[in-house]
Parts: sequence; structure tokens; C-alpha cells
Amino acid sequence: MTAHPFDEATALEPLGDGVFRGRTHPAYWNMAGPFGGATAALMLKAVMEHPARRGRPVAQTVNFCAAIGEGEFEIRAVPVRDGKSTQHWSVEMVQNGQVVTTATAVTGAERDTWAHQSAAAPNFPPAGEVSEVETAGRMPWFGRYEFRMVEGRTPFDPPPQGGLGSAASKLWLRDSPARPLDYVSLAALADTFLVRILLVRGAFAPVATVSLSTYFLADSQALAAQGDRRMLAVADARAFRHGFADQSAELWSDDGALLAVSHQVTWFKE
Amino acid sequence: MTAHPFDEATALEPLGDGVFRGRTHPAYWNMAGPFGGATAALMLKAVMEHPARRGRPVAQTVNFCAAIGEGEFEIRAVPVRDGKSTQHWSVEMVQNGQVVTTATAVTGAERDTWAHQSAAAPNFPPAGEVSEVETAGRMPWFGRYEFRMVEGRTPFDPPPQGGLGSAASKLWLRDSPARPLDYVSLAALADTFLVRILLVRGAFAPVATVSLSTYFLADSQALAAQGDRRMLAVADARAFRHGFADQSAELWSDDGALLAVSHQVTWFKE
Repeated sequence: MTAHPFDEATALEPLGDGVFRGRTHPAYWNMAGPFGGATAALMLKAVMEHPARRGRPVAQTVNFCAAIGEGEFEIRAVPVRDGKSTQHWSVEMVQNGQVVTTATAVTGAERDTWAHQSAAAPNFPPAGEVSEVETAGRMPWFGRYEFRMVEGRTPFDPPPQGGLGSAASKLWLRDSPARPLDYVSLAALADTFLVRILLVRGAFAPVATVSLSTYFLADSQALAAQGDRRMLAVADARAFRHGFADQSAELWSDDGALLAVSHQVTWFKE
Repeated sequence: MTAHPFDEATALEPLGDGVFRGRTHPAYWNMAGPFGGATAALMLKAVMEHPARRGRPVAQTVNFCAAIGEGEFEIRAVPVRDGKSTQHWSVEMVQNGQVVTTATAVTGAERDTWAHQSAAAPNFPPAGEVSEVETAGRMPWFGRYEFRMVEGRTPFDPPPQGGLGSAASKLWLRDSPARPLDYVSLAALADTFLVRILLVRGAFAPVATVSLSTYFLADSQALAAQGDRRMLAVADARAFRHGFADQSAELWSDDGALLAVSHQVTWFKE
């Protein structure tokens, strides 16, 4: 059996003392560096593989500090504080002696509590009725996901006519090839929502995610139950101003349970 | 002229090398520790007062790792990476030799760019037509803010009858006494949205913010223009499950510009 490219891209070699060695993977390459979601996944995986880690991911913030070049890097995960209900982590990715990514993460014990979903699950047509975005010949990481757009533009569409495109997207989403969902892949999936300005203005331009925060609302049982089936995903942005913009996304199981929410602030040039 | 209590509560004494000494303030006390927004403001202020800081805040994530007791603490702000468009910061608050709060922050150069507000500003009745929530005799920090609820419950209302309360709030909001808005006060205002489960279930119960991320979309000119007038604020949550919940908030100027968005994951007991 061949490894899934995601597992290859997030492979970490433990060097001891919470330090892990990894390397960028061509299958998750973006324009001028690795896909940010792959980096987010690697930062979370270092926490998950740390021998002191207890519980499952609750929150992760990833700060993209500098460009990551092709090749090796080291990730150090440090348990900063260990409490009764949560563990707090600081994580740094270093390449060529420079910090290129920082992250904080919170893990928490799995437990059953009162539950309530105040947000309504989005309505989607069956995935089979929605055509898949053609990703051949695009940036490699696009091909590592299956995008079936229910609403919203893709950056490959012709520019919006006589105005601005919508910042909102609604799509069926999963890894490509399909892969059973886990927290590490969910951390990457949470960053598959293109920087919204590309959809609104309809042109490729210099953009970057600055900081990304993902909250994991599902327990590991819910992720296992979702398996490798397509998820429902929605994303939108609120404002673009002074070179920065926000955006938020929700990832839902196909039976309407909110698995994760993700928020980011993005940079754009002009 | 007497100092505003917020300025007293966020006073920091520089000890050199990016380390600052502060102390908890009774005016911003919560149930069993300082109001989280005051802590968020202090973490940001350490960055703002760091001699190497350039530009204005773009993003801040604060992780509430452990209880903060009454008294002194030290905050260390470290510039992790200095880029052309952003500076990345790591911040730690230490009390009695233990890390009690961690944060990351991003600052960025002030610049004028293309701007677009894809989210619609919320409609509010004039603040004068909305009564102020009575905060006398409640936790001290409540009294440091003026809340005029347009929609949604307060935790002081009788429990919701025969069901669950709404997680959504819409309110006029500002410091009390009124104080001109700046980034540090905005960081605190972004955490004035009560942990939503208290509104939904209608009972005080053990809850805490675990991780809070705020994105600052306004430049300093926009904050100065807003001054000490009331802001429009909306907040809501999506799901409560396995002892954790998300919530998101937006802070708007009174002429309908989005100043900041804030997201958090909260912990609840059962």
C-alpha cells in the first residue's frame, strides 16, 4: 500500500526533547512555498506526537512569519502549561536557523457534556450533482483536494464582470485522493479556503495568510464517523482594508454536525 | 485629572529587554481572577511599548493557560520575526514563576490600499433609545463597560422559559467611564462578550475563555475618529460540544465601518 501524500507531507522524525524533523513535499507546493494548511498540519502533528501530549486538539493558532523554502525544517513543540482540563503548547518551525512559523495549541481531555448547536447546518445539494473543480495544471496543492463548488467563484473563473465577485464560498470538500479524516488533516483542510481577495477581485495577486486560528469542535469519534466522505464547507470574509482582511470558515460533517471553525487574517499588497 | 481605570489597569513598568511589570487591578476583577479582556490588553500593550515595535496591531491570539491571582506579574514580549510587511511577536505573562498566559501578535505597517467591506453593517436603533444594563453590585469589570442590549439576553435576566436562550447579542458598547478608543482598549472590548453558554443556559456555571484571537481591521486614524462614542457590537456562537464552544464577535464604528473581529474558544464544565 502506498502512503497517502498527506501522510508523506506530514511525516515527522522525532529528534527528542519535543523536536521533530520534517521536509516540504512537492505534492503540497503552492506558488512560492508550501501550502499553508500543510504547515498548520505539521505544527499540530508535532504536538500530537509529543510524548507529554494528553487529549485531543481544541484550538490552534498558526502565525506564518516568513517564507518557507524547499527542504528540511525542524519543529519544536513545548508544553507550556498543563492544567486539569487543558494543555497549552507553544510550537516553532525553524529553517536554516530562522523561525519561519510559530503556533500555539490547546489540547483537552475527551469528555461528554451537554451539547447544543446554535448555528444551522447549511443546505447542500448532493455532491454528485455538483461538478468538481478542475485542478490539473494548477498549483500542486490544489490537486490534493477535491473542491465541488455549490456557490461562489474559483480563482480560475473569468474575472467578475463589471464589479466585484462575492467573498463567499459553499462547497463539498475532502482530501484527494480521499483519506479518513483526523485532526491533523482537518487542520490542513481548514486552510483550503483561498484568500478571499482573489475571489472578490478576480485576479491572482500577492497575498498571504498572516495568522490562522482553528477551533476543533468534534471529538475523535465524530472524525472517525465522517471517515473519508465529503464535508460541507462554507467560507466568507467581512472586510478588506489597509492591506489586511479577515475570513472565516466552517467545516461540517455530511450529517450536519459542525466539526471545526477556522478564522484567519490575510495580507494583500495593494 | 484622574487616570481612567483602564489606564491604571494596563500600566506597565519597563524592566528592560522586553520585560514589563504590571499588577491586577480591582476595577477589572471577574469572579476569581482578572477580566480576560484586561489580560488581553496587557499582553498587547507589552508589544506596543516594546522599543523594537513598528506599525499597528493586526492580529493577536491570547491563550489563558492558568488562573491569575491578585497582585504583580511580568510580561515578556519577544520579536520573533521582523519582515517587510509584518512583525511577529511571542508574549508570555508569568506570575510566581509560572506561565499564566501566552500570546502571539502581529503588527503591520500602516498603509492605504484598496478597501472593500463585504459584510453589511448591522442596523441599530439609536443608543439613546436602548436602556443600559445595570451593572451595580455585579462583578467589578461589568461596571467598566456600558452595555446597551439591542437584542439578546444578559446573564442577569431570568433563565429562558421552557427552552434555551439565544447565543446571539447585539449591543451598543463602550468603556465606562467613556474613554477614547485605541488598540489596547479595543483588545479588551473584544473580550467583553460573555461566554455564550451563560446566555443559552441562563445560569452561572464554571466557564472560561481558552483562546481568543482578535483581528484589527481599522487603522489608528479610524480609532481616533471613533473616539469615545459607543460602538455597534454583535456576537454569536455556533456550537457547544464536548466541554468546548466557539464564539465570534464584530465591533463596528458608529458610522458602519468594521473595526475588529474577534473569535474565541471557551471551556465549560458539564
